[in-house]
Amino acid sequence: VSGFRFSFVTAMRCVTCGREEAFDALPPTCPTCGPIAGTMDVLYDVDAARAELTPDRLRERGDPTIWRYREILPIRNPWVIAPLPVGMTPLYPLDKSFGIRSPFGLRLLIKDETRNPSASAKDRASAVAVARAHEIEAEVIAAASTGNAASSVAMLAASARIPCVIFVPADAPPAKLAQIQAHGAVLFAVEGTYDEAFDLCSAACDAFGWYNRNTAVNPVLGEGKKTIALEVWEQLGFRAPDAMVVPVGDGCVIGGIAKGWRDLLDLGLVDRSPRLIGVQAEGSAALARAWEEGRPRCERVAAYTIADSISVSMPRDQVKALRAVRETNGGLVTVSDEAILEALGLLARRAGILVEPASAAAVAGMIPALERGLIDERDEVVLVLTGHGLKDIGSVRRASAGNEPIRIRPEIGAVERALARRGGERWRS
Amino acid sequence: VSGFRFSFVTAMRCVTCGREEAFDALPPTCPTCGPIAGTMDVLYDVDAARAELTPDRLRERGDPTIWRYREILPIRNPWVIAPLPVGMTPLYPLDKSFGIRSPFGLRLLIKDETRNPSASAKDRASAVAVARAHEIEAEVIAAASTGNAASSVAMLAASARIPCVIFVPADAPPAKLAQIQAHGAVLFAVEGTYDEAFDLCSAACDAFGWYNRNTAVNPVLGEGKKTIALEVWEQLGFRAPDAMVVPVGDGCVIGGIAKGWRDLLDLGLVDRSPRLIGVQAEGSAALARAWEEGRPRCERVAAYTIADSISVSMPRDQVKALRAVRETNGGLVTVSDEAILEALGLLARRAGILVEPASAAAVAGMIPALERGLIDERDEVVLVLTGHGLKDIGSVRRASAGNEPIRIRPEIGAVERALARRGGERWRS
Repeated sequence: VSGFRFSFVTAMRCVTCGREEAFDALPPTCPTCGPIAGTMDVLYDVDAARAELTPDRLRERGDPTIWRYREILPIRNPWVIAPLPVGMTPLYPLDKSFGIRSPFGLRLLIKDETRNPSASAKDRASAVAVARAHEIEAEVIAAASTGNAASSVAMLAASARIPCVIFVPADAPPAKLAQIQAHGAVLFAVEGTYDEAFDLCSAACDAFGWYNRNTAVNPVLGEGKKTIALEVWEQLGFRAPDAMVVPVGDGCVIGGIAKGWRDLLDLGLVDRSPRLIGVQAEGSAALARAWEEGRPRCERVAAYTIADSISVSMPRDQVKALRAVRETNGGLVTVSDEAILEALGLLARRAGILVEPASAAAVAGMIPALERGLIDERDEVVLVLTGHGLKDIGSVRRASAGNEPIRIRPEIGAVERALARRGGERWRS
Repeated sequence: VSGFRFSFVTAMRCVTCGREEAFDALPPTCPTCGPIAGTMDVLYDVDAARAELTPDRLRERGDPTIWRYREILPIRNPWVIAPLPVGMTPLYPLDKSFGIRSPFGLRLLIKDETRNPSASAKDRASAVAVARAHEIEAEVIAAASTGNAASSVAMLAASARIPCVIFVPADAPPAKLAQIQAHGAVLFAVEGTYDEAFDLCSAACDAFGWYNRNTAVNPVLGEGKKTIALEVWEQLGFRAPDAMVVPVGDGCVIGGIAKGWRDLLDLGLVDRSPRLIGVQAEGSAALARAWEEGRPRCERVAAYTIADSISVSMPRDQVKALRAVRETNGGLVTVSDEAILEALGLLARRAGILVEPASAAAVAGMIPALERGLIDERDEVVLVLTGHGLKDIGSVRRASAGNEPIRIRPEIGAVERALARRGGERWRS
């Protein structure tokens, strides 16, 4: 049998009991282990993929999107991919003088996920989920989200012209709600928590036969997120950094990144994975607690943090997230909302990088990660910044307190007086 | 004389009288023709650049930023470039079924400038201006702006650690103000129009010796913007499209794009420029009127449009803008605010692309451009989308009227009742 194959996807395997299922099985969770313990890994024909997905081939590929890694993405039909390009975001150094306690030798790199079309990393997962929904001819795609995944799936569903239904907590940031509205999705603002919105979405998918984009339940999502790892590998010249620092709520992004490195190990394209270090907000730290206490599962918390994107009471992708940090010799740390806002402001003022609070958590998490020895002072560390500050300007303003706009009439005298109050001579070159 | 040369910049030439000045001359406008008629073109050693800037060399260059075209950018010292990557934004097809009156053969491509770090095309100009300010050891960089240029220069100044002072109209969209605040610039919210903020900024630069980022006055800005043309040329496989459609306020972007194609013509890398078609809002159409009436200069208008980024009473870069459309056999058209909002909504709902009103003007402008024969139905047309919708969620919401969030309690019955009101069976697969 020969001929062009777009993807080498073969099957799914339960993360807990190892049971294999056909890739097309529905629901896409293990019938034995249930929806949380029984999330699935997507498997590929590694020998076939190894012959195609080589550094030399990649250097020749023009396509600067996630689909350059099509052999190990779970979509078989190239015609179902939405036209909006996603992925191949920049990787660049963060100046050493940035202001994190700056040890000699530490090399920090930013993986800048704010450059995706909806301005967050969720576009990677949504691109794969929407293609999959198209491939199985789903009539409606649905998602529950703290806001970013929802705005992302609404956008990609619009690009693919698939009707979309969204469930978000009613207190999601206004910019995220505006994105969802604009892309034409039916938008349910649920009077409750993210966890309640998630459960309501799952119930509605069961009741109405919709395609469920929700991560953890749906293993193709993590396959989209793993492309962060594949790109970092390629952008570093086909090698792994020492560590990656990732904001963690449900655990999907860190779980997806771990899968990316595992695929590269299976393909013989790297000889080790970076240590994966997850950062949670103190008020939403179910995974960090489970990891610290050595427990295999999370206990529910009452999540409350300014970092809405990682505000989760019961992490849905907890098995994959805990496996990600354990198998890579990484760990989980927590940061306060104050530390998050401070990191947000520092990053904007000293590096020109504007992110939402969840992303700033990754930067703030460097301090406890160094203190606990999860990061060494000679390491090369990739910080994953998952969402743009424009998605939450309320928090951006809080992080900018003390630098308020100065209202003046259009007169040079008013400028002089205002500058004098700000320190005078400094402003005269 | 041999050795590595980063840039082949040589001099400046007045767009009106042709007088040449040293590249370092200050102020950077023609002493004979004054600040509006006497804007300058930046010149390069074309023979030297021709040997270096070839398609083969570009294919081998890894750097996915504007600096891949360093030979024809006006910065001589590589060490002054801010670390934040700018440019090499995606170029991708807009589906033919998008909904613009869709003539057989018309090929539409999006040049997606929303993917720049501050989410607008202004980052290209700011990157060059901030590098130049650094190169001449300016102690402060200042800018007046309707919002996007200001948030962009504040961001790049932060990345380069140069103090920054900004002047914007006090009614600029909140997201743009939040960006400027966050990046630590001194932010003057001027109680007046953009034009008044512009004049105040110029007066302050004169009074305090600051480096002035204001376009038109400063020719290095257009050199940044021309990289849009250079990238389109490279992304199309080193050739020109038939036409480019560009939102126009001050005229800097269209003037810069024209300069890019002129440089490629001078280098022998293309044999023609695309027709450049500028789109203005009806309420801010000084350039379109001058072009229609065949006048060499604009008359002041009382600008009022929802598209804040192109709301300009007296276009500062009018000489270059009018030259751009005349020398490329292009033109200028106008669109109403209603057409802008309609295009914004269509683009978001049918293509998954969320832009601010100024960018939507480019899409709306396709209709009059086709009607007037500026675009032919068999053309390949690049639409330049200059800024992300997240920069102006008030306008995004207006364009989404009729698709309001549906507040519900977390109960499946509430979902069913709401969907029934929306058309019932459609939502049951």
